[in-house]
Amino acid sequence: MPTDPVNRNLVYVFDISGGDPALLDDETTVRACLSQVVDRAGLTPLGETSHRFAPQGFSMATLLAESHLAVHTWPEDGTAYVTLTTCRAPSSDSFEEDTRSLLRETFSATDVAVRTLL
Amino acid sequence: MPTDPVNRNLVYVFDISGGDPALLDDETTVRACLSQVVDRAGLTPLGETSHRFAPQGFSMATLLAESHLAVHTWPEDGTAYVTLTTCRAPSSDSFEEDTRSLLRETFSATDVAVRTLL
Repeated sequence: MPTDPVNRNLVYVFDISGGDPALLDDETTVRACLSQVVDRAGLTPLGETSHRFAPQGFSMATLLAESHLAVHTWPEDGTAYVTLTTCRAPSSDSFEEDTRSLLRETFSATDVAVRTLL
Repeated sequence: MPTDPVNRNLVYVFDISGGDPALLDDETTVRACLSQVVDRAGLTPLGETSHRFAPQGFSMATLLAESHLAVHTWPEDGTAYVTLTTCRAPSSDSFEEDTRSLLRETFSATDVAVRTLL
């Protein structure tokens, strides 16, 4: 994959399952993880909005110069998903695999599946 | 389509082309349009983040109780896209067609294509 193509609408959906409920409900953990995803993809955050659900669950959307990133967690189910929509391909060829590993480790998840709309 | 299934990760991408640059750059127009999309889909907004690019272009992400919605416009190209990611199917069976019509009319666009990740 070229390092700097400008495409519109690459969508990555990372579906996390079998995760640790406490980690999925921890805002600091989720935010730090998302920051790493953005950094590794070479993207530029511009702003964010977040919401904590009661009694559990956390959602956040980050606007990027290159589109947006979002996370939604369901601690009660051990699940979450992260979506990246970008008009610029991630700077690393191993973005998908690296992100899967990062999410699996961060949330002690048993599985992280990826779906894409390219 | 059942009216109230809870699925995770329905993704709709509406690609707008041949739009009016002035309308695509008008924040009030974009916001009003997005609010209509949310209302028609029976979704619940929780928060938002937006960014105005210089010299043109506007992006906004709206967090929903059912996930998120975002828009990114490129007035200089007459293009934009709107993505809805939702864990609940839109309440109307004609959501895709209705949204295409709404976007086409709002931005005087020649075409609105839809891609989905279901």
